[in-house]
Amino acid sequence: MNRSLSTLARKLRARLGDAAVRTAPAELAAVAGDKWFAARPPDLAVYPANTEEVSLTLRLANAAGVPVTTRGAGYGYVGGCVPERGGIVLALERMNRVLEISDRDFVARVQPAVKTGELQARARRRGLLYPPDPASLKDCSIGGNIATNAGGPRCLKYGVTGNYVLGLEVVLADGRVVRAGGRTHKNKTGFDLARLFVGSEGLLGVVTEATLKLLPLPPARAALSAGFPSMRDAAAAVQAVFRRGFLPAAVEVADRFTLEAGRKAMPGASIPPGDAHVLIELDGQDSSVRGEVRALRAVLREAGATRVDVALDEAACDELWKLRRGFSNSLRATGLTKLNEDIVVPRGRLVDLVDFARRLERASGFPIACFGHAGDGNIHVNVMAAGYDDPAVRTAVEGVLDKLFAQVLAWGGAITGEHGIGLAKLRWWEDAVPPANRALHAAVKRALDAGGILNPGKFV
Amino acid sequence: MNRSLSTLARKLRARLGDAAVRTAPAELAAVAGDKWFAARPPDLAVYPANTEEVSLTLRLANAAGVPVTTRGAGYGYVGGCVPERGGIVLALERMNRVLEISDRDFVARVQPAVKTGELQARARRRGLLYPPDPASLKDCSIGGNIATNAGGPRCLKYGVTGNYVLGLEVVLADGRVVRAGGRTHKNKTGFDLARLFVGSEGLLGVVTEATLKLLPLPPARAALSAGFPSMRDAAAAVQAVFRRGFLPAAVEVADRFTLEAGRKAMPGASIPPGDAHVLIELDGQDSSVRGEVRALRAVLREAGATRVDVALDEAACDELWKLRRGFSNSLRATGLTKLNEDIVVPRGRLVDLVDFARRLERASGFPIACFGHAGDGNIHVNVMAAGYDDPAVRTAVEGVLDKLFAQVLAWGGAITGEHGIGLAKLRWWEDAVPPANRALHAAVKRALDAGGILNPGKFV
Repeated sequence: MNRSLSTLARKLRARLGDAAVRTAPAELAAVAGDKWFAARPPDLAVYPANTEEVSLTLRLANAAGVPVTTRGAGYGYVGGCVPERGGIVLALERMNRVLEISDRDFVARVQPAVKTGELQARARRRGLLYPPDPASLKDCSIGGNIATNAGGPRCLKYGVTGNYVLGLEVVLADGRVVRAGGRTHKNKTGFDLARLFVGSEGLLGVVTEATLKLLPLPPARAALSAGFPSMRDAAAAVQAVFRRGFLPAAVEVADRFTLEAGRKAMPGASIPPGDAHVLIELDGQDSSVRGEVRALRAVLREAGATRVDVALDEAACDELWKLRRGFSNSLRATGLTKLNEDIVVPRGRLVDLVDFARRLERASGFPIACFGHAGDGNIHVNVMAAGYDDPAVRTAVEGVLDKLFAQVLAWGGAITGEHGIGLAKLRWWEDAVPPANRALHAAVKRALDAGGILNPGKFV
Repeated sequence: MNRSLSTLARKLRARLGDAAVRTAPAELAAVAGDKWFAARPPDLAVYPANTEEVSLTLRLANAAGVPVTTRGAGYGYVGGCVPERGGIVLALERMNRVLEISDRDFVARVQPAVKTGELQARARRRGLLYPPDPASLKDCSIGGNIATNAGGPRCLKYGVTGNYVLGLEVVLADGRVVRAGGRTHKNKTGFDLARLFVGSEGLLGVVTEATLKLLPLPPARAALSAGFPSMRDAAAAVQAVFRRGFLPAAVEVADRFTLEAGRKAMPGASIPPGDAHVLIELDGQDSSVRGEVRALRAVLREAGATRVDVALDEAACDELWKLRRGFSNSLRATGLTKLNEDIVVPRGRLVDLVDFARRLERASGFPIACFGHAGDGNIHVNVMAAGYDDPAVRTAVEGVLDKLFAQVLAWGGAITGEHGIGLAKLRWWEDAVPPANRALHAAVKRALDAGGILNPGKFV
């Protein structure tokens, strides 16, 4: 550790207490990465207890020119919280309180380390719904969800995390504390600065409190699980659902490779026959949901479903979702390394994407499994690699991803829908974002973090 | 006109053609203001035909340090497009084409001067829904809607304009053209820069093309119109609707003063008895909507409705909305000047707001009519003034608004929900936004418009 870092560590210990400033190798290794492959220990791990301590840490780090990389729950998929340039990891895990849930104003106020699933459960007990439901909701935090504008199956109907962010308290790079937005469900007071921090991956500020919009909890849920002979049939079925004016809470698909892995890993599971699977969830008033399930079953059958299973209560719905989540685990159970790319295609390109993945699979030799949020075109394309530790294999996988992302961008798609750029997508950042847009990113970054201390080494 | 403006006018005429650059007093007066009271003619009115001409105009104006104020349809309510510092009004009315409506990808691409109502109608013919529905939708433009992040009744269920902005082409102050976002329904590629321009009231750039998200068109609509003895009863009814897990497309209220004006101006209209009115709209599948209307009628009756009228088809729904829109016109028919303040209170403060308005009315002598979007707390508080041309009356009204906004802010509310700051709310900008937030506004403004040429004299 160099002198300026040692001085900084001493000052921080004096103000935050020894327990809040860690330097032991094991402690630094614990905050070196997330669920992606890259990892780099920082020089210091700082655990602030409140906004004032975040502010102080940033003020001192900024003055010393020391990088600060903010860490949520460490459940990101793209290495977004890896401290590429060392310095401080600012781990927010102590700021984990739900400050308020109001069933009069339909808002929640939370600290950043509150787990998404915990907020959902507490809102639910008050008859309220917090819709965003990333797959890792039991483990991931609201702060991380805001940093990546996290989605999940339900954002087809309900929208992504940003749609629920009413107000934020943010500490800027120089330690200034800004409150943007508020607790009203609408607000046109000035620029939408709260929204600027949503999805900014820790490059613009540190969120220390969020005021989130809640909805009335729909009293009923139902789900349909349908098999189709091919992805082409499944995609046509999904379009038929939309053409009938349905906007389900979720419309998920899985392809043949995914289903075969599922059948192998979950031999007792009720997976309908066919090479494609569609899972639809509805919510709303009880009698409406029951009627709509009947109508949708007919739509799916007309579209050629091999079988349609229906779940009409919470437990049965959870069972179908267990199946859907099982797909992801089944892919891991193949023993291959699963490189999950959360690309997005324009909604009409679903079949084209799956056809392209098949061709890429044949050309490359790597199995490619596609499943995910068909409703909004956000498909998780999983390149399955044997021997991923071998640099030659990594290079080959990168070549496959080069081709995949080039095609996705040529269709007007996006290289990430809900995971972010982080380190995993950095290689393709310049392909995805034209120069004038990158220049604007740089200008905004300079305006908010002139010293460039926040999460350096990432996309700006 | 000074020399630099004359030179600029000559250059613009040479490049855009004489017809696109106007200086006659009547032509300048035509772009001097919007639906609010302030007006100031610019020195030049420029009518670009395309993005390149917008870019050229901005490049030349920026080099010459000439202010540029962008004008949409001129249907704003806060003087947002008044060219306070003269210079150029950039009137986008020629850029009025719907470029694409895709029922495969569920997107529309439009130029900024497309009327909101036209987009809705064209989407509808393709079985698609563009939800944002500001009251002026027949006259206002998508560009203006983006500048103010416009809402409307339906944004209770569907969210505001920003929730539908997937991608923007924007010309920056120096003429650079930036494309941000895209045509996918999800996108986490970098900062959400498209969203930064939403609601920025022409201070950060000029939107020259927008890619908007469309939804499947719900096949059925229904509405309920209910009278209540008092606003307290109406507010309790609204809370009961939410507690039963309903999230209607719209929940509107109107108070006694509004209803009395309505009864006077529309003697034949079917206004239920009582001092408060609730209008609820539902949409979705036909049988669901019918069942939910029955359930909601029971909820409203249990909550003490004096009468509940039900509309089960398009024509009947439109009739109930005509009534609701009639309230606004009825207030105008009183002969008083109607100062419409689109404040927002936290949802639970509806009764407090109406009680406060009553007290303010008694103390000030100005009648105050409250109606609007109860579901999201965005109530239009209309101070009704006789002799508003008299400066003493204006001062008295400002005093009333000082008290109103101070109370709204004390409740954690917002001084504008969907109209914007413009000139109308400028007096209260510093009350509404704390210094650190204003400093951040200034930093963002400098980063995007260093010369400060875009819409100067407004909130930054």
